[in-house]
Amino acid sequence: MSVFQATTSAPVNIACIKYWGKRDTKLILPTNSSLSVTLDQDHLKATTTSRADASFEKDRLWLNGTEEEIKEGGRLATCIAEMKRLRREVEEKNPAEPKISGYKVHISSYNNFPTAAGLASSAAGFAALVSSLAAMYKLPSTPSELSLIARQGSGSACRSLFGGYVAWEQGTKDDGSDSYAVEIAPRGHWPDIHALICVVSDDKKGTSSTSGMQRTVETSELLQHRIKHVVPKRMKDISEAILARDFDAFARLTMQDSNQFHAVALDTYPPIFYMNDVSRAIVAVVTEYNRVALETTGHLKAAYTYDAGPNAVIYAPKENIPEIVQLIVKYFPQADPFKDPFGLFGAAGVGEGKLPEGFNAAVAKPFTIGAVKGLIHTRVGDGPRVLGAEEALLGANGLPKSA
Amino acid sequence: MSVFQATTSAPVNIACIKYWGKRDTKLILPTNSSLSVTLDQDHLKATTTSRADASFEKDRLWLNGTEEEIKEGGRLATCIAEMKRLRREVEEKNPAEPKISGYKVHISSYNNFPTAAGLASSAAGFAALVSSLAAMYKLPSTPSELSLIARQGSGSACRSLFGGYVAWEQGTKDDGSDSYAVEIAPRGHWPDIHALICVVSDDKKGTSSTSGMQRTVETSELLQHRIKHVVPKRMKDISEAILARDFDAFARLTMQDSNQFHAVALDTYPPIFYMNDVSRAIVAVVTEYNRVALETTGHLKAAYTYDAGPNAVIYAPKENIPEIVQLIVKYFPQADPFKDPFGLFGAAGVGEGKLPEGFNAAVAKPFTIGAVKGLIHTRVGDGPRVLGAEEALLGANGLPKSA
Repeated sequence: MSVFQATTSAPVNIACIKYWGKRDTKLILPTNSSLSVTLDQDHLKATTTSRADASFEKDRLWLNGTEEEIKEGGRLATCIAEMKRLRREVEEKNPAEPKISGYKVHISSYNNFPTAAGLASSAAGFAALVSSLAAMYKLPSTPSELSLIARQGSGSACRSLFGGYVAWEQGTKDDGSDSYAVEIAPRGHWPDIHALICVVSDDKKGTSSTSGMQRTVETSELLQHRIKHVVPKRMKDISEAILARDFDAFARLTMQDSNQFHAVALDTYPPIFYMNDVSRAIVAVVTEYNRVALETTGHLKAAYTYDAGPNAVIYAPKENIPEIVQLIVKYFPQADPFKDPFGLFGAAGVGEGKLPEGFNAAVAKPFTIGAVKGLIHTRVGDGPRVLGAEEALLGANGLPKSA
Repeated sequence: MSVFQATTSAPVNIACIKYWGKRDTKLILPTNSSLSVTLDQDHLKATTTSRADASFEKDRLWLNGTEEEIKEGGRLATCIAEMKRLRREVEEKNPAEPKISGYKVHISSYNNFPTAAGLASSAAGFAALVSSLAAMYKLPSTPSELSLIARQGSGSACRSLFGGYVAWEQGTKDDGSDSYAVEIAPRGHWPDIHALICVVSDDKKGTSSTSGMQRTVETSELLQHRIKHVVPKRMKDISEAILARDFDAFARLTMQDSNQFHAVALDTYPPIFYMNDVSRAIVAVVTEYNRVALETTGHLKAAYTYDAGPNAVIYAPKENIPEIVQLIVKYFPQADPFKDPFGLFGAAGVGEGKLPEGFNAAVAKPFTIGAVKGLIHTRVGDGPRVLGAEEALLGANGLPKSA
């Protein structure tokens, strides 16, 4: 008897040109295009095993070992139904294919992100869900086609169907059929882009991005200008910067668009704040670092970007990462030693950090341990991976192995 | 022998529709109109004595007892020269007038603001300077005419030439002759508007407003939209709200425009932040207070606004001030007892503060003593006052009395 099962992993992506605002909340169609860098699954990933079996009584899903309800008409149910529909098309075209589209599925998903990292896990999660079902169903779909479905789970999930540098084209059709992800350049085109994620402690529960972005659409006049007049040119400019491996342009556009996303959040009524004093201090430190770099080398060395939370992601060419880590550790001392996945610091480790020559130390005051509660060093990565059976998260009984 | 001397005081004003950006930095011509509430000089004021004398060897000015350099071509020199020009016109029209426009002047100015309050003193200071010279020179100028000169000292100073509710019309002429302040309504039209100033502690030196606003003009695409499409309507709407004493509309527009000013500051490259975590928490507290008020009374009860710094100014009808003080003191405990200039609390004082019924305490976490380092309760006030000789800040020798 055949077992219909597949396990895949999918990456996190962090946008440089931000998605904020939906023109259709059910289909998750955005008010503007966006662009992201896919991060390396060696460091951050969601892994998902899907299985279809005639004996299963209903669709079930476990996230990090805990069963989640699959609400009728909800985002999970929509994604699963759409994947079954694609399988049915395969079965209809090729009668030799086993008729498994009618089987119920069991899905187990696991994120390897550090606990409470505050990293958006839904993008990687829905990308892994869709790619594992696609692998199990042996679909001929391209990543862009699958991105149409992941998008309906979580908008930015569509960008995690590709590695490298990825655009989500907003599209114009009412049915969303032209709102999908495309690859601007694969990881191999510009593998030198690394990322330092600064996990910032926050006391306060922020506004959820789903409700926040709709309030912005309804109340921010500045958002309308951003959508119509700013983002289209930035999408073009940053795509060209990526193709030309022009870090100066890439960095400037990334920082400007992070600033503008938080500006329209603030222009919302009532206003939405995601960055806190620690986030602001990281901006000040990166800005001063770039000021010195521009003076001494004529080039920018780092770019910050912030999603709907206080964490900073700092993009930089690999060669600048040691300086950046030293700088961050100097202002935001760490409880734990820096995990050095690329072996930049050798046995001596980072130590207490230091400032580059010419850096004006007064741009921020040093914080206490815990203000930045962790640092994750990663880099641009590849798209979803199909894993071997030995990595399956479901046991022979069709239930999570950990359960 | 005649003494040519006059002493005046002038008020602080806090904008509801914010001035941010110049189209002419020398003449201080703004990129958009703005509107403010003049605050009561019984609580906050700048006092200035001006004197002209044939024996003075040069123009001199003392601020809070310390002599300031009057730089050639600088803002102080421009204002003094313009006032002398107006005096010369008077002398030319009326030959009986003493010829004092050619005399050098001594000027002594004093702010009664609490030390380190972080309140913009330049608006009140230049308004007092101009009004004291106008009184000494017995000019027939209207407040709007004088505001043309105060504007060249510090843009927002032009609005301190009137009491009540004041607009600064941006004007369109290159010479700035139509960029002046006008009264929308006198204090007596709507005397019920009170203000609670929350003086917020800040570690960090912010970007000066002069350099900050020019960086915004140069780099923020959102500012251009704000100037052309948002502010003109808001000016009209808030003027109507003031004339109708419609606090709901006044409060909403005030909060939205404060948000939008800080949004365009954040959209600047590199970004400018003036609000900190304490400022954000005050926004959260006022927002929740208004949410409860809307539910229970159908009306807003308070409006926050922030200038180029972390301090909050909360506008509210007088009857709401006790609740607001209780609320602020609850989250931001005070080292010193609340100075209660309107006798709202009686002998028992404010105590430890309390939350209104139905208020969700979780919208902010309580801060430690000193996060808000002082509270100032004031209200809408009158325009510049001419004071008696007994309040003069210059002695018989033409030097500051305190020196």
